[in-house]
Parts: sequence; C-alpha cells; structure tokens
Amino acid sequence: WGGLLLKAWKFLEKAWGIANSEPKKVVHGLKVGLALTIVSIFYYMRPLYEGVGGNAMWAIMTVVVTFESTVGATFYKCVNRVIGTSLAGCLGIGVHWIAAESGDKFEPIILGISLFLLASAATFSRFIPSVKSRFDYGAMIFVLTFCLVSISGYRVEKLLELARTRISTIAIGTSLCIFVSMLFCPIWAGSQLQSLTARNLDKLALSLDGCVCEYFENDDDTGEMKNEDQKNNNSKVEGYKCVLNSKASEESMANFARWEPAHGRFGFRHPWKKYLEVGGVMRKSAYCIEALHGCLNSEIQAPNSLKLHLAEPCKALSSSSSQVLKELSIVIKKMKKSTKIDFLVSNMNIAVQELQNAIKSLPSTQMEVSLSEQDHQEANNEDHHKATTAATIPPLMELLPLATLVSLLI
Amino acid sequence: WGGLLLKAWKFLEKAWGIANSEPKKVVHGLKVGLALTIVSIFYYMRPLYEGVGGNAMWAIMTVVVTFESTVGATFYKCVNRVIGTSLAGCLGIGVHWIAAESGDKFEPIILGISLFLLASAATFSRFIPSVKSRFDYGAMIFVLTFCLVSISGYRVEKLLELARTRISTIAIGTSLCIFVSMLFCPIWAGSQLQSLTARNLDKLALSLDGCVCEYFENDDDTGEMKNEDQKNNNSKVEGYKCVLNSKASEESMANFARWEPAHGRFGFRHPWKKYLEVGGVMRKSAYCIEALHGCLNSEIQAPNSLKLHLAEPCKALSSSSSQVLKELSIVIKKMKKSTKIDFLVSNMNIAVQELQNAIKSLPSTQMEVSLSEQDHQEANNEDHHKATTAATIPPLMELLPLATLVSLLI
Repeated sequence: WGGLLLKAWKFLEKAWGIANSEPKKVVHGLKVGLALTIVSIFYYMRPLYEGVGGNAMWAIMTVVVTFESTVGATFYKCVNRVIGTSLAGCLGIGVHWIAAESGDKFEPIILGISLFLLASAATFSRFIPSVKSRFDYGAMIFVLTFCLVSISGYRVEKLLELARTRISTIAIGTSLCIFVSMLFCPIWAGSQLQSLTARNLDKLALSLDGCVCEYFENDDDTGEMKNEDQKNNNSKVEGYKCVLNSKASEESMANFARWEPAHGRFGFRHPWKKYLEVGGVMRKSAYCIEALHGCLNSEIQAPNSLKLHLAEPCKALSSSSSQVLKELSIVIKKMKKSTKIDFLVSNMNIAVQELQNAIKSLPSTQMEVSLSEQDHQEANNEDHHKATTAATIPPLMELLPLATLVSLLI
Repeated sequence: WGGLLLKAWKFLEKAWGIANSEPKKVVHGLKVGLALTIVSIFYYMRPLYEGVGGNAMWAIMTVVVTFESTVGATFYKCVNRVIGTSLAGCLGIGVHWIAAESGDKFEPIILGISLFLLASAATFSRFIPSVKSRFDYGAMIFVLTFCLVSISGYRVEKLLELARTRISTIAIGTSLCIFVSMLFCPIWAGSQLQSLTARNLDKLALSLDGCVCEYFENDDDTGEMKNEDQKNNNSKVEGYKCVLNSKASEESMANFARWEPAHGRFGFRHPWKKYLEVGGVMRKSAYCIEALHGCLNSEIQAPNSLKLHLAEPCKALSSSSSQVLKELSIVIKKMKKSTKIDFLVSNMNIAVQELQNAIKSLPSTQMEVSLSEQDHQEANNEDHHKATTAATIPPLMELLPLATLVSLLI
C-alpha cells in the first residue's frame, strides 16, 4: 500500500510539474470541460432536448472526439467529421433505396456486400499518403456513418429523420468546439510551429558556439572550475539533440497549421511548407554539430601547436555563423526582414575565407584539424543554404505582417 | 473536367502501386470489411438484435474505432476502451446516485460540476507522458462514457440497463476485433519492428560501404559509366536517410508491441526496449555516415597520393564493419546468437589497428584524410557499442527462440 501511495504521490508531483511549466495544457483541459458542460446544457433544457430528439448524445461525442489542443487540429477534425458524415449519409441513403427496391430477400445481401466493399476501400485509402495527411479521420467517420445508416435503414422507419438529427447534432458539436477553442486562449498550431523553429535555431547557435569553444579550450582548462561549468555548458551544447528529433512534431504542426484560419500575423496562405524546409536544413546542420561533438571526445587529438594556430579563425567563424543563426531566429520570430542579416552573412563569409587562408598558410605538416575545419565548412554551406531559404521566406512573409502591423498600429 | 479525371486516374494509379507493393494494407482493409459485416449480422438477425436492444450501434462503433492495422494497436485500443468504459460507468453511476439523493434542484448543478472537473482532469492527464504512451485513448473514452452516463441519468430511467447493454456491446465489438485481427493474416507490430531494425542495419552497411568506395574511387572514374552506375549507387548510399527518420515509427511500434500476446518466436516479456536502444545507436551511426557523405561533395579534397596510401586500410575497415552490421542484421532476423559475430568484430578491430598504423606511418606531412579516418573510428566505436547492446539482447532472446524452435521442431 505504501508503495502504491508513493507512486500516486510521484505521479501527482509530475503532473503538477507539467501544469506549472506548461499552463497551456491546463487551459486546454479546462476548455474541454467547459465545452462539455455547455453541450450538456442542451440535454438539461427541455426545449433544446426536444429539438434534437434523444440523439443529443451525438453532440457530446462530437465534442469529446474532435476537441484537440490546437485550433488547427480541432478544425481538421471538425471539417473531416462533417464531410465524412454527410458523404456517407448520402451514399448510405442511396444504397438503402436501391436495396429496398430490390425486394426483401436481397435487401440484407446487397447491404452487406456494399458495406464490405466500401469499408474495405475506405480503410485501405487511409494508407495512401495524400489521404492520410488530410482526411485520415474523415475516412474513419465515413465508414462509421455509412455502417450506421445502411444498417439502421433495415430497422428504423424514419431514416431521413435519423440523418437529419445526426447532422444537426454534429453541427452543434463542431461549431461549439470551434468557438470554444478559438475564443478562450486559443493555441495556434502555426505560432507553436514558429516558436519551435525559432527556439531550435537558437539552440543550434548555442551548441555550435559551445562545441567549438570546448574543443579549443579543452587542454588549457585547469581541473577546478570544470565540474560546474561543464555541466552548465553541456546542457547548452547538447541542445542540438532536440533539433535532431523534432521532425515528427514539426510535420504534424505544419499539417494542422494549414487548417487554421488567418490569425494574428499569419495570413490565410501562409507558407507553412517553408517551415518544414527550414526544419530539414536545421536537422542537417544538427548532424554536422553531432559530428563536431564527436570530435570532442575522440581519441585522436590534434597537436597543440596546430590547435593554437587555428583557434582564432575557427572561433571567429563559429561565432559569426552562430550570430547568423541567432539573427535568423529573430527574423522568424518577428517575421520581418532583418537589416543586419546581409551584413552578418558577409561577415561569416569573410571568416570562412580567413579560415581557409589559415589552413593554406599552415606548413602542410600539420593538417589534422582539417577535420573540424571541414565540418565547419559544411555547417557554413548549410548556413548559406538556410540564409537563402530564409531569404525566400521574408518576401512572402513581409507582405502579411507589414499589412497587419500597420493595421494594428493605427 | 479533364484535369479532374486525370487527377482521379493518377490517384487510382498511386493506390494500385501501394496495393501491389504492400499487400498487407489491402488485407487490412478486407479484414475491417469482414469484421464490420460480421457485426452487422447481429443487427439483421432478430434474436441477437433483441438481446442487446437498439444499441447494436455501439458494437459497430467499437469495431470501426478500435480496429487498427497491427495486432498490438488493436489490443491497445480494445483494452483501453474496456477499462475506460467500465471505470467511467461505475463513477458515473456513483455520481448520479449522489446527485439524485440531493434533490431535484441541485441535481443538474452537481452533475454539471462533476462533469466539468472530471473532464478537465482526464483531458489534462493525457498530456502526462506515462499516461499518454499507454492510456491516451482510454482517457478519451473515460470522458466520453462519463458524460453519457451522467447526462443520460437525468432523463433515462433504466440507467443500469443502459450500462449493461453498453458494456455487452463493447465486449462483443472488442472480442470480434481481436479475433479477426489475430486469426486472418495477423500483422504483428513486434515482427514489423524486428524486420524494420534488420532492414535498417542492412541499409547502414550498404551506405557505409558505398560512401567509402565512392570517396576513394571518385577520381579514378572515367566519366562514361558514371551516370547509370552512380544513380544505382546513390540510392544505396542514401539508404541511411531512412534510418535518420525512423525514430517515431520505431517508438510507436515498440509501444504497441508491448500489448501483443506471445506469438511465434516472440515471448511474453520480449525486451522491446532493446530494439529502441539499438535504433538509437543506429541513428547515431547514421549521423556519422551523414558526415562521411558530406565529405564526398566537400570542396577541400585530400591530395591523391595520400588517398592512395590510406585507401586500402580504409576500405578494409569499412568492409569489415559493414560485415559486422550485416551479421547483426542476420542475428536480429534469426534471433540466434551468431557464431561468426565475435570473429567479425575482432576482424574489425584489426582493421582499425591497421588504419591507425597506416596513419602513424604516414609522413606527417599528409594528414588530411584524418577526417574520414576519425569518422570511421567513431562509426566503429558505435559498432562496438552496437555489438555490445546486441550482445546483451541475444542472452535474453536465446531462451525464448530456442524454446519455441525446439517445440516447433518436435
């Protein structure tokens, strides 16, 4: 019993920690509670209850099932639910009519076969990528509704009545979901994607800086201040690991963001795919940093003289490129074209040149650090690349935020 | 119209391609159709229909919602659905009893407040990682059922009757799902995870080989045979990219695999987490190969004399380590401890030694390839690591497959 209590206590502590660090999640919980309470009022009030018959249940189910934490996800599910239900409803009534025409004997057979075929086809279609990313949930609802309609048709007399109440309850549920999720502290998938991208850029910059510094300062350190500082540093340096694993969440957010209506500084046709491209490039540079990080703990180390020779240009390069990264992060956060970015990029290019000169000027006896150098070069190529992708975003973004900013400032 | 038809045609072509390359998906579609047809028979046959009342619908919903493509996922949803429904049902009846005792006036208020609190708490709990990975769906069903019960209690007289039919229909639906998904061509999440891991190991081996060969042969090539060969080669070399992005699917499969009952060569407490560990190590070595791959297209190339000097040991190392990878892939596929693995690993270690010697024997004027060398070292360290993780798996695995193999061979 003691163990069980302890476990429960730990669980509560963890939950409290999450609630403290991410109040948005608590807000989402409260919003679901609110939406459900509102929808249950339909049930308590007699006039409303009479309106939709005993099927108020469907409205509740709709709320429970479609209310997601981001506005985009809620939209996606609501739209899918409505489309799937209406399509399947029409088709179901059609099939039912055909079956009813063909006599009592064949009716169940026709219904059964059509059910089997349509359910199989719809389930299979959920594996097709283009359907999966947009209409996965809709296909499921399609199967569900078609089953209900084609089967109920066999027993229930008032099929059209059933269809009407089902559609009206679903309409009530979905519109309630959308209102609640948009009116009370909305959590937009789009802005989450944006801040995730900006945060990841910052982390990359920190990691890059930290890695290079550590590499060149490793040997000069005395053992004293190492422990505390290094721990602190390590957590910074390993920030790139988040970037490595962010692909899945980025993709789902971009997917949901497409469903969101225009809000804040995001217009209707905001280029969400660009974020995915930036994310891909970021992941590539994270791989480079991973390789750099590997050199820190590698057995083979360059001779010290060489390190000293290359330390300056390498550090200059890393700091200039991490500045570019930070600036890009600000660009993405503010969605304005930065005035500094061109200057910083050219700075970085100069640093690359200097490093190359330093390498060429080396007596070619000592080339071992070329390792870290080459990786840098790569990181830089990618920074360039990122700079160019990012540079393609601002023109698209500029129009939207400027327009909205102006309208806000009036 | 022409454009629309063309699109539809392309869509069908794509679907056909998927159906051809992965017949399992078609089979899954057919299985869902079958399960739904069986469950709808309940509705057509009068005695069965009378048994569960008009609520046969719930059985259909259960089938549509819980039938997933792998056995593990189906189990997960069924178990969650049953647990969530029964818990919420009990709690709902309890709350309803309290509310009914406290008089007509307070009844809706008490019901509303308890609904709000419980729905908020359950929704929030879905964000807690330990709940999310195991009971995400259960929490949703809990909210749904609690709502239905507490609300229906206000209008429906026979609450216990409602609960009974709901539970029996869900039992029918879940047992049908589990039977169909296990009896007709079952698709086990566990064996999919296993084959994914083995395939990824193979891909890594090919990429490693391809990368190193390409690096050293780049310059000797005449331009003729390049085009066709290189395309062929490129697809091999870039196999590691699949490995980079396999994290999410591995995790979900391992998560579902835990729910699966013992089957084939997989025992009840099969160490699924080990697969995740192996996957993590694989991803790390894929990062290394990414870095290696970067060198292929790097601007700075080592002088040819140096390349020639190091070509042999590097190739030997890469071929020996890719042999280790292939052997590991076989080990995972067959789940038997390989007799060759120790020999291959020691072979690889010898190759590492030789490469290090070759580097030391170099006139230290030419050290530039140390880049590819260091990365190799890393790849090797990781192979070692993998060898050790893989070596920890077999002892665990040995017992299970040996026992089942023996019982199969009798």
